[in-house]
Amino acid sequence: MSQTAEHLEITDVAAYLRGLGERARAASRVLAAADSGAKNAALDAIAADLDAQRDRLVAENRRDLDAGAAKGLDAALLDRLELNAARIDGMIEGLRQVAALPDPVGEIFDMTYRPTGIQVGRMRVPLGVVGIIYESRPNVTADAAALCLKSGNATVLRGGSEAFHSNQAIAASIRRGLDAAGLPADAVQVVATTDRAAVGSMIALPEFIDVIIPRGGKGLIERISNEARVPVIKHLDGICHVYVDDEADPTKAFDVALNAKTQRYGTCNTMETLLVHDTVAAEFLPELARAYVAKGVELRGCAKTCALIDPCSAADAADWDTEYLAPILAIRVVDDLDQAIAHINTHGSQHTDSIVTENITKARRFLREVDSSSVMVNASTRFADGFEYGLGAEIGISTDKFHARGPVGLEGLTSVKFIVLGDGHVRS
Amino acid sequence: MSQTAEHLEITDVAAYLRGLGERARAASRVLAAADSGAKNAALDAIAADLDAQRDRLVAENRRDLDAGAAKGLDAALLDRLELNAARIDGMIEGLRQVAALPDPVGEIFDMTYRPTGIQVGRMRVPLGVVGIIYESRPNVTADAAALCLKSGNATVLRGGSEAFHSNQAIAASIRRGLDAAGLPADAVQVVATTDRAAVGSMIALPEFIDVIIPRGGKGLIERISNEARVPVIKHLDGICHVYVDDEADPTKAFDVALNAKTQRYGTCNTMETLLVHDTVAAEFLPELARAYVAKGVELRGCAKTCALIDPCSAADAADWDTEYLAPILAIRVVDDLDQAIAHINTHGSQHTDSIVTENITKARRFLREVDSSSVMVNASTRFADGFEYGLGAEIGISTDKFHARGPVGLEGLTSVKFIVLGDGHVRS
Repeated sequence: MSQTAEHLEITDVAAYLRGLGERARAASRVLAAADSGAKNAALDAIAADLDAQRDRLVAENRRDLDAGAAKGLDAALLDRLELNAARIDGMIEGLRQVAALPDPVGEIFDMTYRPTGIQVGRMRVPLGVVGIIYESRPNVTADAAALCLKSGNATVLRGGSEAFHSNQAIAASIRRGLDAAGLPADAVQVVATTDRAAVGSMIALPEFIDVIIPRGGKGLIERISNEARVPVIKHLDGICHVYVDDEADPTKAFDVALNAKTQRYGTCNTMETLLVHDTVAAEFLPELARAYVAKGVELRGCAKTCALIDPCSAADAADWDTEYLAPILAIRVVDDLDQAIAHINTHGSQHTDSIVTENITKARRFLREVDSSSVMVNASTRFADGFEYGLGAEIGISTDKFHARGPVGLEGLTSVKFIVLGDGHVRS
Repeated sequence: MSQTAEHLEITDVAAYLRGLGERARAASRVLAAADSGAKNAALDAIAADLDAQRDRLVAENRRDLDAGAAKGLDAALLDRLELNAARIDGMIEGLRQVAALPDPVGEIFDMTYRPTGIQVGRMRVPLGVVGIIYESRPNVTADAAALCLKSGNATVLRGGSEAFHSNQAIAASIRRGLDAAGLPADAVQVVATTDRAAVGSMIALPEFIDVIIPRGGKGLIERISNEARVPVIKHLDGICHVYVDDEADPTKAFDVALNAKTQRYGTCNTMETLLVHDTVAAEFLPELARAYVAKGVELRGCAKTCALIDPCSAADAADWDTEYLAPILAIRVVDDLDQAIAHINTHGSQHTDSIVTENITKARRFLREVDSSSVMVNASTRFADGFEYGLGAEIGISTDKFHARGPVGLEGLTSVKFIVLGDGHVRS
């Protein structure tokens, strides 16, 4: 790992990954016991090193960009790959923000005395070793390492092969920062091979890696979920809904529906299907449709919707199950709240769904019965985000129910143990 | 499922399990929205039905006992299988205790206003469908169903084939109780075939079963953990330690060490290895060893231990890694707290470990650095239990770090979702 910008000669990838895993496990024990000051000092030292190494980061990134251009990567991919001054600023700022967050590790809560006289509570602890598998953006290397480090976890990072030199340069800064703060440099290791077999090896090391977080396209995430031999914190589809109730305030409904679709098109918390109560559809939809069309959004509706707005193409069955990630919106007129909830629980992806209503009884039912990681009342689905929720930062959004659900910040990277205090107590 | 005491003619086990899973998924949606009153009414109705069906339960259990005796099951297994009046009382009392627990579902917490004006918090929700795979004790059928029902989860239960008729009789009472309370009878389904292929099918239905909880021997649990295609809440070994520090109060140390080993031998939270600080070993160990020997405990020690007590056989390397579940104790003299913590983190099973000391600095280090699901100061490891911790009941003890750790009660059977309340808020 000391050759920061050269491919290592690695002939046995599985053995190499085992070695990384073993060192990560050893480092995780030190990191779990490290105090907040040391972790924050490391984060600040990494930020300072990245700042001092800007020229080298840009030069190493240039090697990746040139190789990518030669391989014919498209413009969008090359843009994601680029490390410019603003993005280096972003990494540095991100590290300092994570340093400023409260340390979750060692937090003690729910301490109560039991009838036997023992005192029982819980202490928050790191998960251990987190494996992160991601694609082209090199800034993920610094962002993910920072969150894992702060939460007391060692990390094994496997970035995209097209960002190899950029990631190795960032890894070198991280190692120097850890070293400067007296923490084990192996606490953050970046896989130094572009061999695709590394992913398969990494997800099959339950003795060394406690959880895998894949970040990237659906294909990558599905493959990892199916093959991993350790738990996976994953994000699949974001098929998000806004339901405009017959008792919605029309202005709020207009604002929320427009923002949820058009504020950004490519994000997982963007609305993909709008549901409108039958009795307000004729009044509400035409003006909203004009606003969408003015922004270039293609509308696909049920029969009732297409009778009310123009242009409108007929939605087919697949539309209700599609995450467009594009300026396309499916619209369905529903009979009532029950049909709206049934539609969301059937066609949604348990990500983020919002009701617009002034009726508190319907709001309470929607909050309780919609089975999604974020459920909202009178707010845009675009708020589903770790920063907006006050988590400080997020390592991803989980669409699972097990362990962590919704935006995953520092707390999602921890577990809890029970602690018991006695005075020589024995069980009778 | 209406034939409560007959094997169904099931030719396609995988299809049969899929059918159970589909019905469980449908029932789970109703159960998630059910109010506490209905769930408690069902628990009370099941208890009343079991009380009214005592003769039938005993008769069906007699069929299992006779078949087991004919098959040559040993006395311990036949004892676990038996449903006598006291055990039926226990099931009934357990159901009523779960009814009396607070309902975790729908609990809202951590609601705060964010700078944007939205209000963000969390709501506790059921996991969905819980699959439970267990061995000979039929009372698990009622106990596990009760915890899952109260936490809003549908359940698919697969008990041991030797308890088939007993489990089907209990299942009939559960269905009648659910029905009487107006809840879907499919909320609790007991697999009505003894075909061993049912387990393999049940753990490979991620679309219908959200989590599997195996309860039984290590072989069963390892097989399920390796093969399951859904998350598993599991309990493996309980290799628990007590460390007697040089600053321990000798009376507390004596009481805790004796209780942790001898209060019960076959439980997972029983101490299997005693660690004693070198400077107090000569004073402390001989009297304690006499107390163990008086209770019939076989002692296996390191060289220093065997020089201090008699009788003492030499412990070999395997002893430090063994869960005896028997009146056998391994004893090691250690140099200091560091060696004690290193021993526990190397040889323990991350279950339950306790330090006896009057020194708060050492107690704080032990609590922070021992990586186990329960970590104790001056208390017997035997306290590691859902009832003792105030969880009301437990469905098992998890030795994993992911999702639930330690004794798992109602909360471990739930997830949380984010809820957001706004007033027409949009993201800018």
